[in-house]
Amino acid sequence: MNLSKRIESVPTSTIMELLTLSAKAKKSGKKVYHLNIGQPDIKTPQGFYKAIREFKGEILEYSLSEGLPELIEAIRKYYEDYNIKFDDDEIIITNGGSEALLFTMLTICDDGDNILVPEPFYSNYYNFSKSVGVNINPITTLAENGFHLPNKEEIVSKIDGKTKAILFSNPGNPTGVVYTKEEINMLADIAIEHNLWIIADEVYREFIYEGEYTSLGNIEKVKDRVIIVDSVSKRYSACGARIGCVASKNKDYIKAILKLCQARLSVPTLEQLGAIELYNTDKSYLTDVNEEYRQRRDVLYNELIKVPGVICEKPTGAFYIVAKLPVENADDFTKWLLSDFDVNGETVMPCPAEGFYMTPGLGVDEIRLAYVLNSENLSKAARLLKEGLETYLKLNKK
Amino acid sequence: MNLSKRIESVPTSTIMELLTLSAKAKKSGKKVYHLNIGQPDIKTPQGFYKAIREFKGEILEYSLSEGLPELIEAIRKYYEDYNIKFDDDEIIITNGGSEALLFTMLTICDDGDNILVPEPFYSNYYNFSKSVGVNINPITTLAENGFHLPNKEEIVSKIDGKTKAILFSNPGNPTGVVYTKEEINMLADIAIEHNLWIIADEVYREFIYEGEYTSLGNIEKVKDRVIIVDSVSKRYSACGARIGCVASKNKDYIKAILKLCQARLSVPTLEQLGAIELYNTDKSYLTDVNEEYRQRRDVLYNELIKVPGVICEKPTGAFYIVAKLPVENADDFTKWLLSDFDVNGETVMPCPAEGFYMTPGLGVDEIRLAYVLNSENLSKAARLLKEGLETYLKLNKK
Repeated sequence: MNLSKRIESVPTSTIMELLTLSAKAKKSGKKVYHLNIGQPDIKTPQGFYKAIREFKGEILEYSLSEGLPELIEAIRKYYEDYNIKFDDDEIIITNGGSEALLFTMLTICDDGDNILVPEPFYSNYYNFSKSVGVNINPITTLAENGFHLPNKEEIVSKIDGKTKAILFSNPGNPTGVVYTKEEINMLADIAIEHNLWIIADEVYREFIYEGEYTSLGNIEKVKDRVIIVDSVSKRYSACGARIGCVASKNKDYIKAILKLCQARLSVPTLEQLGAIELYNTDKSYLTDVNEEYRQRRDVLYNELIKVPGVICEKPTGAFYIVAKLPVENADDFTKWLLSDFDVNGETVMPCPAEGFYMTPGLGVDEIRLAYVLNSENLSKAARLLKEGLETYLKLNKK
Repeated sequence: MNLSKRIESVPTSTIMELLTLSAKAKKSGKKVYHLNIGQPDIKTPQGFYKAIREFKGEILEYSLSEGLPELIEAIRKYYEDYNIKFDDDEIIITNGGSEALLFTMLTICDDGDNILVPEPFYSNYYNFSKSVGVNINPITTLAENGFHLPNKEEIVSKIDGKTKAILFSNPGNPTGVVYTKEEINMLADIAIEHNLWIIADEVYREFIYEGEYTSLGNIEKVKDRVIIVDSVSKRYSACGARIGCVASKNKDYIKAILKLCQARLSVPTLEQLGAIELYNTDKSYLTDVNEEYRQRRDVLYNELIKVPGVICEKPTGAFYIVAKLPVENADDFTKWLLSDFDVNGETVMPCPAEGFYMTPGLGVDEIRLAYVLNSENLSKAARLLKEGLETYLKLNKK
């Protein structure tokens, strides 16, 4: 039986081999500190559970395809606090940011079209795009520049007759970069000059540790072409709720993506009731979480830069750091950490960064670290990484 | 800003105009009996809510991409009770039957490929397929034949070099037809002879009122090419949970669709915990519900056939009837029912059936009725429909 060419072009997850090694290490009694995944350890606001527990309906009916009006209204108010003005009918609830991305690609791209994405990028951008026959033209950014964008000329050189959109996450996963106002304006200008959509994945918006944050939602000149992809997953540590949204002032886009949302009928009712309470959570929750992550970033970064040869700018957003290591192959190094290294029975697991790049050969010597452990554990993990790297380098210099 | 050609080929929902008329009727004080939607009025098993209320985790984490092992195991056992043998790794949990369908299309079809579907069919088959560039080659079935399949020759004549699969719901939405063992075997033979996948949408499996049910899961000769699409929505009156699954013994298909499931990370955790309890519901729940629907079908059918000129075979499954009416245009008739007709301030809303057909002109004089009201209300609704039709026919004979 034949599968589609498009599904065959979607890569199989490469993390499995590493997870097997990690499971083996744990089975042998080793403690593994996981810096490899973006699953926060922060408590979900309890209002989420409360709202769900209090549901009184006897029949769990379909919800509206566009989402519960009360949730849409809560999200509209959330944006308003950032001076981003949306009407209720410009917001549609989705099954996580994932469905928002997939449906957006189907809504604006045909088979064979392409989109520009700064690399390294969230690897599921690639998987979603390939699954629907869309190509990614990568715009390479570098650890040495803190993963900021190259100049306009270089970006424009990646545009061709099939280019439909620019897609990026800001703050960036996996890089932690936060684009400057100038960078955002440059992207906006490019979009206008080349008639492109801008898909701004702003799910890490609350995680900004220094300087100003510029949302695409605040750039007036591109308001007819901006699509914001958003989610409660990281913001409220509610990854398992799978509640996201798209927001856009382009009515044609909203009308079009709504057709897909109607085809899939609705998003879970209870999770939406919970999500309303997430957006009603006291703002101090977000402030506290932000401060917690800022401290963690400092702990991790300060440990990392002590290691000679590590190249890494201090990231200013999200909860990731991508570091270039003085090793030939970060995947081999990770395997070694899991299989052959420990300090008093403990080791650490980073995520090799090659999978975040599209251009062959890039990222082979880089890792992504998610600082989703509390500071004490993170500190231990960072020291393990440092010691591990030092030992590994000595061994490989023999 | 341009949208994709594929999204533009997805039709806009035509039900909106009717819903507006229905809202207007209600505003004017009229009572409208809704036979137009497939939202059951049966109580969701309370174990669903209980399981969710009892969730003790503080952090709502991502679930596994393939679904919670306990839910997969519950579904495996459910199938086993029907002598359908799946291993745990042959079942993947999805966001409703909807995601199961969309992801399956992406997994087996490329842009420009086509699938065979008996018409009238669930209209979202069309919307999903067009959204991913897949065409449907309709196999026309007729009210006069109770919507049973045409002969093999006619079906085979719809196959071309781009045909990848046969897709159908059994029991059928909108028709209520349950295919005979002979029909299922004929489809299986066609699939083998023309190397096609079979996507069997069996979400109405529990709603069989007469005779034998043949699941594709029981047909040994096609076990490597059958994909079962399933859902808790109708079975346990839990439409708002959005929990479905795909099941297939074809490992390549499972491995391939899993890549899409990994890209969208996971299905909501809490809804899965609830769904485990749905599958653990005492079997008497399903028996009672089945008996309830059987009675409703009889009430509705017995009223319908009293009207001269109505063509309608007694359906043996699901909770729908498609009836051919002695009117020129069922959409006009529906509008008239909502706007210009009432008996003591009450009227009824059927669903015009044209949208379930792909071949232009078919179904214009047909309606789909969902018997999702209790017998008393259903009986009233059926009499209103009968009186409405009689009045309408008299008016139009003037």
